[in-house]
Amino acid sequence: MTKPRLRIGLIGTGFMGKAHVFGFTLAPRVFDLPYELELHTVADITPAAAEAAARRLGFAHSTANWHDIVTNPEIDLVSITAPNALHKDMALAAIAAGKHVYCEKPLAPRASDALEMTLAAEARGVKTQVGFNYLCNPMLALARQMIEAGELGEIRGYRGLHAEDYMADAAAPFTFRHDPAGGGALADIGSHALATAEFLCGPISRVMGDCVTMIAERPDGKGGTRRVEVDDLSRAFLRFASGATGSVEGNWIATGRKMQHDFEVYGTRGALAFSQEHFNVLNFFSTADARGRQGFRRIEAGPDHAPYGLFCVAAGHQIGFNDLKAIEVAGFVNAIAGAPEPFSFRKGLRIQTLIETIQASSRAQAWMDVP
Amino acid sequence: MTKPRLRIGLIGTGFMGKAHVFGFTLAPRVFDLPYELELHTVADITPAAAEAAARRLGFAHSTANWHDIVTNPEIDLVSITAPNALHKDMALAAIAAGKHVYCEKPLAPRASDALEMTLAAEARGVKTQVGFNYLCNPMLALARQMIEAGELGEIRGYRGLHAEDYMADAAAPFTFRHDPAGGGALADIGSHALATAEFLCGPISRVMGDCVTMIAERPDGKGGTRRVEVDDLSRAFLRFASGATGSVEGNWIATGRKMQHDFEVYGTRGALAFSQEHFNVLNFFSTADARGRQGFRRIEAGPDHAPYGLFCVAAGHQIGFNDLKAIEVAGFVNAIAGAPEPFSFRKGLRIQTLIETIQASSRAQAWMDVP
Amino acid sequence: MTKPRLRIGLIGTGFMGKAHVFGFTLAPRVFDLPYELELHTVADITPAAAEAAARRLGFAHSTANWHDIVTNPEIDLVSITAPNALHKDMALAAIAAGKHVYCEKPLAPRASDALEMTLAAEARGVKTQVGFNYLCNPMLALARQMIEAGELGEIRGYRGLHAEDYMADAAAPFTFRHDPAGGGALADIGSHALATAEFLCGPISRVMGDCVTMIAERPDGKGGTRRVEVDDLSRAFLRFASGATGSVEGNWIATGRKMQHDFEVYGTRGALAFSQEHFNVLNFFSTADARGRQGFRRIEAGPDHAPYGLFCVAAGHQIGFNDLKAIEVAGFVNAIAGAPEPFSFRKGLRIQTLIETIQASSRAQAWMDVP
Amino acid sequence: MTKPRLRIGLIGTGFMGKAHVFGFTLAPRVFDLPYELELHTVADITPAAAEAAARRLGFAHSTANWHDIVTNPEIDLVSITAPNALHKDMALAAIAAGKHVYCEKPLAPRASDALEMTLAAEARGVKTQVGFNYLCNPMLALARQMIEAGELGEIRGYRGLHAEDYMADAAAPFTFRHDPAGGGALADIGSHALATAEFLCGPISRVMGDCVTMIAERPDGKGGTRRVEVDDLSRAFLRFASGATGSVEGNWIATGRKMQHDFEVYGTRGALAFSQEHFNVLNFFSTADARGRQGFRRIEAGPDHAPYGLFCVAAGHQIGFNDLKAIEVAGFVNAIAGAPEPFSFRKGLRIQTLIETIQASSRAQAWMDVP
Repeated sequence: MTKPRLRIGLIGTGFMGKAHVFGFTLAPRVFDLPYELELHTVADITPAAAEAAARRLGFAHSTANWHDIVTNPEIDLVSITAPNALHKDMALAAIAAGKHVYCEKPLAPRASDALEMTLAAEARGVKTQVGFNYLCNPMLALARQMIEAGELGEIRGYRGLHAEDYMADAAAPFTFRHDPAGGGALADIGSHALATAEFLCGPISRVMGDCVTMIAERPDGKGGTRRVEVDDLSRAFLRFASGATGSVEGNWIATGRKMQHDFEVYGTRGALAFSQEHFNVLNFFSTADARGRQGFRRIEAGPDHAPYGLFCVAAGHQIGFNDLKAIEVAGFVNAIAGAPEPFSFRKGLRIQTLIETIQASSRAQAWMDVP
Repeated sequence: MTKPRLRIGLIGTGFMGKAHVFGFTLAPRVFDLPYELELHTVADITPAAAEAAARRLGFAHSTANWHDIVTNPEIDLVSITAPNALHKDMALAAIAAGKHVYCEKPLAPRASDALEMTLAAEARGVKTQVGFNYLCNPMLALARQMIEAGELGEIRGYRGLHAEDYMADAAAPFTFRHDPAGGGALADIGSHALATAEFLCGPISRVMGDCVTMIAERPDGKGGTRRVEVDDLSRAFLRFASGATGSVEGNWIATGRKMQHDFEVYGTRGALAFSQEHFNVLNFFSTADARGRQGFRRIEAGPDHAPYGLFCVAAGHQIGFNDLKAIEVAGFVNAIAGAPEPFSFRKGLRIQTLIETIQASSRAQAWMDVP
Repeated sequence: MTKPRLRIGLIGTGFMGKAHVFGFTLAPRVFDLPYELELHTVADITPAAAEAAARRLGFAHSTANWHDIVTNPEIDLVSITAPNALHKDMALAAIAAGKHVYCEKPLAPRASDALEMTLAAEARGVKTQVGFNYLCNPMLALARQMIEAGELGEIRGYRGLHAEDYMADAAAPFTFRHDPAGGGALADIGSHALATAEFLCGPISRVMGDCVTMIAERPDGKGGTRRVEVDDLSRAFLRFASGATGSVEGNWIATGRKMQHDFEVYGTRGALAFSQEHFNVLNFFSTADARGRQGFRRIEAGPDHAPYGLFCVAAGHQIGFNDLKAIEVAGFVNAIAGAPEPFSFRKGLRIQTLIETIQASSRAQAWMDVP
Repeated sequence: MTKPRLRIGLIGTGFMGKAHVFGFTLAPRVFDLPYELELHTVADITPAAAEAAARRLGFAHSTANWHDIVTNPEIDLVSITAPNALHKDMALAAIAAGKHVYCEKPLAPRASDALEMTLAAEARGVKTQVGFNYLCNPMLALARQMIEAGELGEIRGYRGLHAEDYMADAAAPFTFRHDPAGGGALADIGSHALATAEFLCGPISRVMGDCVTMIAERPDGKGGTRRVEVDDLSRAFLRFASGATGSVEGNWIATGRKMQHDFEVYGTRGALAFSQEHFNVLNFFSTADARGRQGFRRIEAGPDHAPYGLFCVAAGHQIGFNDLKAIEVAGFVNAIAGAPEPFSFRKGLRIQTLIETIQASSRAQAWMDVP
């Protein structure tokens, strides 16, 4: 009757580290999980920082050396929220030690690394997850379910977007995100637009990319400037295996936009329109509505849209970003107990492959098949 | 360096009980609280239900007798989320035992009861809180701050609303909410509109009420019907002590509306418009904007609007209903450590007084001063 | 086969005079009217102004004396767009001369005057119209048709509004609109909210008013100030003969609002929400929609919503304010040929009666039956 | 003092013919034009249809032979609203006869034809205009003025769109619009998106197109089917001469969309967002707004945005599609009197060139410089 324990080690305590903890804390109180979650050890840069984080976030132990986590036999699951460049080493070490690995996106700077990580995890038989949290939204689940059930008919056109303005200020200094290994706007946030596109419409088979660097140099923080090579804004034309066509844009210099993770999908019998800035809403148009009464219908998330009802008893109350993280955690914990992995390393690899194909297509100025 | 512990007893494990637990769980991970929170004991109807709830929600102990909680000397804070009719007995018992009391709204069916509870708590020196969670929204804090800072000039007009449709179906059976002790639409949700009105514009001094019962009888669940006496829809004209005038509506038969907790406030130099269905947004009009460039500005909650930034690193991610509960918990825990009580029993009494004055005014068909 | 001519005299060449001309010019090109419209004579303050207006607006003749129009036997229809205080004399003179009269709102400062005008017109057998142009919107026709057809079920609650900010500046000088004969916010724009309420939900039987003057004096234009007695903001509770209840607000100091002529109407099976700022859209909620797929549906005006299709071949193009005026003109011209009058002096009288009952109720601080 | 007359001949009496007449009728009443406009002759397919149209629309004469219009020495201006395939012959004949020519878009099926027409008009010294009416919107004028004045800083990114659903039904029969000479979605409505893009951001220098036919055959109206070669949906990446980059989409199978002529433009200091479905509104974000008070500002068209004030005395009343046509007419009439041509054949040629370059780029699957 007592549930088995799943002991968690967390590497990184920044925004995403905290978000993981919110998820680990909320998930067992919202869902009936197969495990009891135990916050075992947290790793940060210094012993003091790690100890403070442990106290604040509720971990029993702390360390300044992430290897302590991946080698500790008591730990079952390793959460990786450290800078992108470290994901691979950490994940491979954790996999080698037989841990389940929950890694923030992007999985790795290069698809080749992501492939290595994926194959290692599959060979070792551990479960993996990449944090594509927007896909955990009940309204995206609803959208996919409506598309699969044919409520839109056959899909013809897709328009996806992820635009923010956090890199719009050219005077903001060069950071790891401007390093080619960091990836640029397409890898950083365009990846969300790609993940959503495939989540809803299935595999993308062919792309034509247009990756642009608008801010060609940034202050290096030492009084000089540093050349920026990554994209600020990327667009792609898409062909889906289904025959549908579409486009996506990833843009981190979209002045004024804070979370324009939007899509519109048009089918022969209906359409959906969504904006992450109102992520508890899905707009639905149906040609089945009576003449003179047709229009986009603003469906608000409610108990009819699982698992919303586990968070809020009635529509309109709204779940937040951290609740999406709880849904993500629940998905991974269930996967560890045997359910399908909602967003495994293999899927993270897939997104990385899409990104690199778009980038290569942009460089070649030619359409390319997605491998 | 170790924080003192604050041991919590929770009575009730329904939607609001769960929301309290979300709050207790999230708050210490989001805020730097003066206490370490410990989920000590939970009470439910039967031992089995209580034990299951304890396991699921993370309490160390459980009981089927709420008196065990209020009398347990180990417990510091009692959360009351049981049906409204029981609030008074539970709160008075907890106060008598020297516990801090966190009670869901409405505090009590009658202002006289709320007064008794308030005076008891103040006499005993314990801290109290009523769960008016919508007031915990960073955008409402922003609205109040803008009004106080004079960004709207002198306030002239206010329009407030809380409309939902959860009682719109006349075939839905009579419940405790239809009992005069339960209070009706004004007490149940109009109370939120009143709380917001005073939160933003200060004391209401005079009211004219219009309380209407549209569904006069409901199925009694035994094949017959039962007469409904409480209001389905209440309106009031308002006079504020400041000289502003306004109106509110509480409505639980507003077909299609899920969370229309909205307000507009008009001043001599600006205006605000808000809808709870997009509660991470505040719309602001300023006459100081340049001619030809004026318009309502859609401000999205972000790190500039504390404490949003403790939940999400950037604007647009959005906090949810349960995050508001975490803010509410943090406010109460800080109050226990000496900060002002954000929404004490005395304020709960105030709302109850407003409700009853509006109801009396409606019966008398006459304006009435708010005591 | 040639259509008879209807010769038009226009008094007043301001905003509304011009709007009438737009209407007279567009209507015969949009609708198949029973008459050919001829712009015969226009009257303005001075001969020069009148002559210029004639040239600009397309009238054959001009005059500086409005009596020339009402006494000219060649003229069939007199349009009155002069200041409100002159409506009565002009209309009575035109009626006495057997002209059809099209008068801008408000019909007259007092219901007693409106009654005199109404009875005179009915006795003389001429057709009359008051310019309540918002009612000419195809989406309001749709709303009424949906309500009448029972698509919303039985109506329970109504919330109406007409708020603007054109009197929000306390430094703006006293004008004829601030004169008690001019009427204040309720008469000036609240009248639209009342007209829409009855257009949709039928007769209002009982009201409780709250009329407020917030700006008690204004510059008199001569260096001094003048006391303002009319209301800046008026609210009313409503009872409809149908059993529905509701509220309206008229407000000309609603900072930031330009055309908040909005309503929401809630029935047992559906609801409508409308905003004049997007008057080509009607939002419709139906409980008949499938579970999990319900929501307010944004219906855009299109050819299914007559007479929109006569203006634009497809939805989304949008008609504008002056097009509403063309619909209004067509309605009146058809009435002259025998169709029912869409908004006769009797209906103008009705609105004036509602206004005065609300004002009297506010003064008496008591509910009043509408005569 | 009397204005010279400008005598108008109209070819075609469908939706666009009627819209031209609305424009000719409204414009002189709204604007102080340099000419008096006279509706001289209208041409339709049969004498009876032409005569009926003349009576209904207010023309003095009618004809079933369009040559009568272009050769009539009394006529100064020829409006061409006949099917696209006839534009060229009609325009060349009118130009040869020394008429000013106002032609609906698209100017001609091929850029080579448009070039011939342009050169003929310029050689003959007549004024020309193509009906890109969405550009006549005061809010687009405002947008351009804001961009030119540097209110957005340097433009970096542009996203444009024109999507409707009028060809979404695959069972709808093959029409002239499906003929390669008709052009497809890009030519028919994507042209608007291109015109707006250049109107706001200046010349497009380079494109990469993606033109897609989703409905490959349609009923031929005789029981069989006919192959469709034109695009249903076209996308393009854009490079502007200014250095900005962007994208556009033209789509006539966007289920549920009626008038999604939208754009977003992002600069270093601000951004604009616009939707034709609310074309009296422009949304403006400025980084100059105070911290914590930034957001997209909903500017409603009003008298500050010329020439709106000539139509409506106050913001919020809204102009409609036919009012845009009146602005278009006024622009052309002023051009005939010597002002710059707002949208001459040369500009129509430019749009046609953009369309064909995008189509060629799509076929070649390669970026192309715009000639």
